[in-house]
Amino acid sequence: MRALVLEEQDRIRIRDIEVNETVGPDDVKIKIAAVGICGSDVHYYKHGRIGDFVVREPMILGHEASGIIAEVGKNVTNFKPGDRVCMEPGIPNWLSRESMLGMYNIDPSVRFWATPPVHGCLCDSVVHPANLTFKIPDHMTFDEAVMVEPLTLGVHVARKVGVVPGDTAIVTGAGPIGVIIALAALASGCSKVIITDVVQEKLDLVENAYGGRIMPFNVAKGDLKQFVSEHFPYGADILFEASGSAKAITSAPEFVAAGGKIVLIGMPQGTTPIDVVALQVKEIVTYSIFRYANDYQRAINFIASGQIDVKPLIHKHYNFEDSVAAFDFAASAPPGVIKTIINMM
Amino acid sequence: MRALVLEEQDRIRIRDIEVNETVGPDDVKIKIAAVGICGSDVHYYKHGRIGDFVVREPMILGHEASGIIAEVGKNVTNFKPGDRVCMEPGIPNWLSRESMLGMYNIDPSVRFWATPPVHGCLCDSVVHPANLTFKIPDHMTFDEAVMVEPLTLGVHVARKVGVVPGDTAIVTGAGPIGVIIALAALASGCSKVIITDVVQEKLDLVENAYGGRIMPFNVAKGDLKQFVSEHFPYGADILFEASGSAKAITSAPEFVAAGGKIVLIGMPQGTTPIDVVALQVKEIVTYSIFRYANDYQRAINFIASGQIDVKPLIHKHYNFEDSVAAFDFAASAPPGVIKTIINMM
Amino acid sequence: MRALVLEEQDRIRIRDIEVNETVGPDDVKIKIAAVGICGSDVHYYKHGRIGDFVVREPMILGHEASGIIAEVGKNVTNFKPGDRVCMEPGIPNWLSRESMLGMYNIDPSVRFWATPPVHGCLCDSVVHPANLTFKIPDHMTFDEAVMVEPLTLGVHVARKVGVVPGDTAIVTGAGPIGVIIALAALASGCSKVIITDVVQEKLDLVENAYGGRIMPFNVAKGDLKQFVSEHFPYGADILFEASGSAKAITSAPEFVAAGGKIVLIGMPQGTTPIDVVALQVKEIVTYSIFRYANDYQRAINFIASGQIDVKPLIHKHYNFEDSVAAFDFAASAPPGVIKTIINMM
Amino acid sequence: MRALVLEEQDRIRIRDIEVNETVGPDDVKIKIAAVGICGSDVHYYKHGRIGDFVVREPMILGHEASGIIAEVGKNVTNFKPGDRVCMEPGIPNWLSRESMLGMYNIDPSVRFWATPPVHGCLCDSVVHPANLTFKIPDHMTFDEAVMVEPLTLGVHVARKVGVVPGDTAIVTGAGPIGVIIALAALASGCSKVIITDVVQEKLDLVENAYGGRIMPFNVAKGDLKQFVSEHFPYGADILFEASGSAKAITSAPEFVAAGGKIVLIGMPQGTTPIDVVALQVKEIVTYSIFRYANDYQRAINFIASGQIDVKPLIHKHYNFEDSVAAFDFAASAPPGVIKTIINMM
Repeated sequence: MRALVLEEQDRIRIRDIEVNETVGPDDVKIKIAAVGICGSDVHYYKHGRIGDFVVREPMILGHEASGIIAEVGKNVTNFKPGDRVCMEPGIPNWLSRESMLGMYNIDPSVRFWATPPVHGCLCDSVVHPANLTFKIPDHMTFDEAVMVEPLTLGVHVARKVGVVPGDTAIVTGAGPIGVIIALAALASGCSKVIITDVVQEKLDLVENAYGGRIMPFNVAKGDLKQFVSEHFPYGADILFEASGSAKAITSAPEFVAAGGKIVLIGMPQGTTPIDVVALQVKEIVTYSIFRYANDYQRAINFIASGQIDVKPLIHKHYNFEDSVAAFDFAASAPPGVIKTIINMM
Repeated sequence: MRALVLEEQDRIRIRDIEVNETVGPDDVKIKIAAVGICGSDVHYYKHGRIGDFVVREPMILGHEASGIIAEVGKNVTNFKPGDRVCMEPGIPNWLSRESMLGMYNIDPSVRFWATPPVHGCLCDSVVHPANLTFKIPDHMTFDEAVMVEPLTLGVHVARKVGVVPGDTAIVTGAGPIGVIIALAALASGCSKVIITDVVQEKLDLVENAYGGRIMPFNVAKGDLKQFVSEHFPYGADILFEASGSAKAITSAPEFVAAGGKIVLIGMPQGTTPIDVVALQVKEIVTYSIFRYANDYQRAINFIASGQIDVKPLIHKHYNFEDSVAAFDFAASAPPGVIKTIINMM
Repeated sequence: MRALVLEEQDRIRIRDIEVNETVGPDDVKIKIAAVGICGSDVHYYKHGRIGDFVVREPMILGHEASGIIAEVGKNVTNFKPGDRVCMEPGIPNWLSRESMLGMYNIDPSVRFWATPPVHGCLCDSVVHPANLTFKIPDHMTFDEAVMVEPLTLGVHVARKVGVVPGDTAIVTGAGPIGVIIALAALASGCSKVIITDVVQEKLDLVENAYGGRIMPFNVAKGDLKQFVSEHFPYGADILFEASGSAKAITSAPEFVAAGGKIVLIGMPQGTTPIDVVALQVKEIVTYSIFRYANDYQRAINFIASGQIDVKPLIHKHYNFEDSVAAFDFAASAPPGVIKTIINMM
Repeated sequence: MRALVLEEQDRIRIRDIEVNETVGPDDVKIKIAAVGICGSDVHYYKHGRIGDFVVREPMILGHEASGIIAEVGKNVTNFKPGDRVCMEPGIPNWLSRESMLGMYNIDPSVRFWATPPVHGCLCDSVVHPANLTFKIPDHMTFDEAVMVEPLTLGVHVARKVGVVPGDTAIVTGAGPIGVIIALAALASGCSKVIITDVVQEKLDLVENAYGGRIMPFNVAKGDLKQFVSEHFPYGADILFEASGSAKAITSAPEFVAAGGKIVLIGMPQGTTPIDVVALQVKEIVTYSIFRYANDYQRAINFIASGQIDVKPLIHKHYNFEDSVAAFDFAASAPPGVIKTIINMM
């Protein structure tokens, strides 16, 4: 089948590639409609690796996708050909200790699309487990359905940390993950969110698209401590750290209320200095997050109900034939561009 | 001072009455701006009692109020005269076991406005603990601030039950409490809510004011089981019981997903038959709710941020001089009228 | 292979029976060492059904078992022939919504040993999923390992309800389940447990085996309200209902502290009258329980560490050849006999 | 009254001192029976300060105490002169945000015995709030009752982190706090605990007093990673960090199971390097702890029921007249000495 293949670092092309297309009894086959380009796709393209995951053989890119059911396995009763769907891209071993506990995201044997050596979904069709495939309502576009994948991370974060109704929050880092988390936090019960960054264009995007309940703040230009104390006199109930910046992580406790929470989503390199006593005097609980589990339908629900509008996050479309151009655009996109989508139909 | 006094069952009037006006070191004195009429106020007026709480002496009515700070006690540093505020109406013993645990709402010694023998707030001014008094933002009206009290119950319900982001919910009973809970549930992370009743006018109010994410359903006219299964194939994650109807309580488990939750807010008389095994096969957890604690600021946040619009719930205004007429209107209001407000300034 | 077969209501015998013995890639084959007789086994024997589960074809009895690994599937790396083990008897569909959530016990498609039409384990050997098979330490006997199954229910109950360190508890019903729950509650952090019944022999067993931290109380002979108030002035933090008696369920709220919990484990027939308002004024949370999930290793840990001593619960042993006699004994055992074990080797 | 007074760094003596002895309406007056010497008492004695808390005026030492009720305030109904009690030493402002939430331990205005400038309890008698005073059962000695204070920290830790029945745990640091946490963890549902240190004498004390369920391990002599993997194949469910050692904190994630928890109790100086990604891939939740709230009665329950035996922790007794010698002994006690008690009667 036709696919966008990362041959090796810095070299991608559309070509035919052989992949397993056997539809198992609990699988469905999906014709791909749209695929979003994620920062990790671009990172594999330009660097050939992320941490210990190294591209050693040609790999199909892409893990954010929507499509149409083409075929269903013999045990599958809740789908039929023609159903419009989106797909959760990580396939665990359902028999592992972590899967049994409902935390299949941290099963070390998860096979995740476009994470070497596992192929992604930027191709004609994929075979996928039916229980990781989700119907989308008629009024949801394939483009919105592509956004379910990144939004699911935000929903997972909000679920794990347990947003309490009316909570106040700070999100440090206004990149795609930070913005998505701010949206998920609001939909999950936060009443006000401050989002911070040092790049004004990113903050402007937030202001234009979601100003009002999300308050952008440029930490390069002002005193965050003072800004927080004006809006949240006791500090924020939750601080979502989405920048990966060591400085943001280290200073987090001073912006959080006594009894509050910090959530580590950004992934800094090396070790980060933490002031343990600053956590203790407020009895802060620190959560850490890795992908998601049992959150996909919840993200679909939020888009379907209109509570989260993901359309302002989509900035550019390409046809499949122009996938290489799409990746080159994404690799050098100006600050504030969140999502580039490749339309396959 | 002038006050609306319930002299005895069926007899209310505006008159002068002597009350303690000493401002203690941790108190504030508030000039009342607006007071909402609650179903319990009307019930005391028309029946002279609610359960074991019997009106034996003249009592000022009203417990939903907003106002302006007139005076502050010597220990109070976070208020000054002129601040616009609303007030949490139940005063616990802060030294009780329940208050120490943060559950001061179930402290048996709570003194709650307009619950015999405690005076309410339908009067010129009240003296109140500063830590149960809350500033409202400039853009919030005194009428909206009156709605904080009923909304706080909804926020408490959502907080205690732990709404999970993207949850689906059913609210049985579309009276004032049911509608408020539906709004709080949505703001707290529910993605879709079905609300049921047998009175079409109540459901029409919901449809007109909040149609879309709240789906009204008349159980006298259709099959709820089928309606639920169309919208929530596994059943609802949460069922909020706000009707007090024994039938609604008994049938609740069949509408709830495996692993789901039921919340008992409505107060039925006598005992209600429950199918224990129906709860067990789904491991349903059943919550029960009594007033609220530590939720007032959270409700203010939701109104202030625009996430909950309470204005469609306010149907009628009266001046203080016309309070008796206001109560007579509230006592015989047509279905679908939620809130009557008495403006004191 | 040889097995104890329930041919139809009231007729069991040892005979040869054909069962599937294929060891799948994720399975192990276990030679059975010991099997406990559970109340449900006896119930199927004497009544031919439990609720909707009806014995329509010959079925091997038994679901509490320990044994020795005889063979391992090709994917199985953590077992080898000769390992001593015990087995969790319910096999869910790992792809179901409930299994994905970590609540595989409430997956409606669970296949549970000796629940029609699924064969049990009172036979030479069984093939079983490796991830539902658990090693036991050298110092644990096969008889103790049989007790893991019933104890796991107690551990599940304690885990779901969230015992808080130092909690006080009441267990209503001193049958096998009640005693097991009392033991699990104590091991899980309860500091004192009152257990009630109307049959003095059952209470005597508790007093003799576990007196001190478990306090037996005969509700036919004394006033429980007074006894509770002497030991737990605010009421119990948790009431575990293990009798299935409607009277015990209805009166439960009066023995529970404000903010406390009730857990429904006993399965009453028909509906049970509940005083909803009595729950509400204390904001009681009511849990309901169905089997267990992810609790087996935890129960093994408690026996292995010596924190729970199950030996006093084992009253009688039979050889496999005498299985029919064993069942007849169990079916008419005097009050206070908890467990009869059939030794297969 | 007579008291042991810290005049300034390195100078303590018994002398008369004037303190407020007015018994308020919600207070009790307690004649002191026994006082334990805590590491913080010794630290103030030898260093004159702990962090920002500096001894600027003479201060009575001691905060672990038991005694006998001598007088009760007019609102106090649950005590009478002669009752044997122990006392929770931190007095918050009950009207603060944190106290209202039930987390009065992190109210910044807490006044804690023997924390400058607040006097402690090493004196004839103290006046104390009745709701922070707790009856002890007849069979509990005044010495055991002194141990309630340090044990309460362990109970708080176990409660906050939510020990799950059958959890496995590691405690890093076998000083008084570490040992107490190990005991509280076991009583709260942990099934096995490894405790580590580099000082063999401390580990020997644990082995001698509590060997079996607590497994001491000398990290200076062996490979902890290997020891943990032998006993807990997936890693520990909880790691309690009680050493304050940066090295122990940094390496903590590698010993914890996926989905596990780390609890920071030890207070390191300065910042500590943390590997955020190591936390994330296991979605570890990190708790931090400061004193305790609502845990005193729970600790009493554990000692009263015999589930925790604190007697092996008490190594030395002095009379009040010999208090200076007691402090000098405590200040230079050999490793493995946990508690020195001063008996006042």
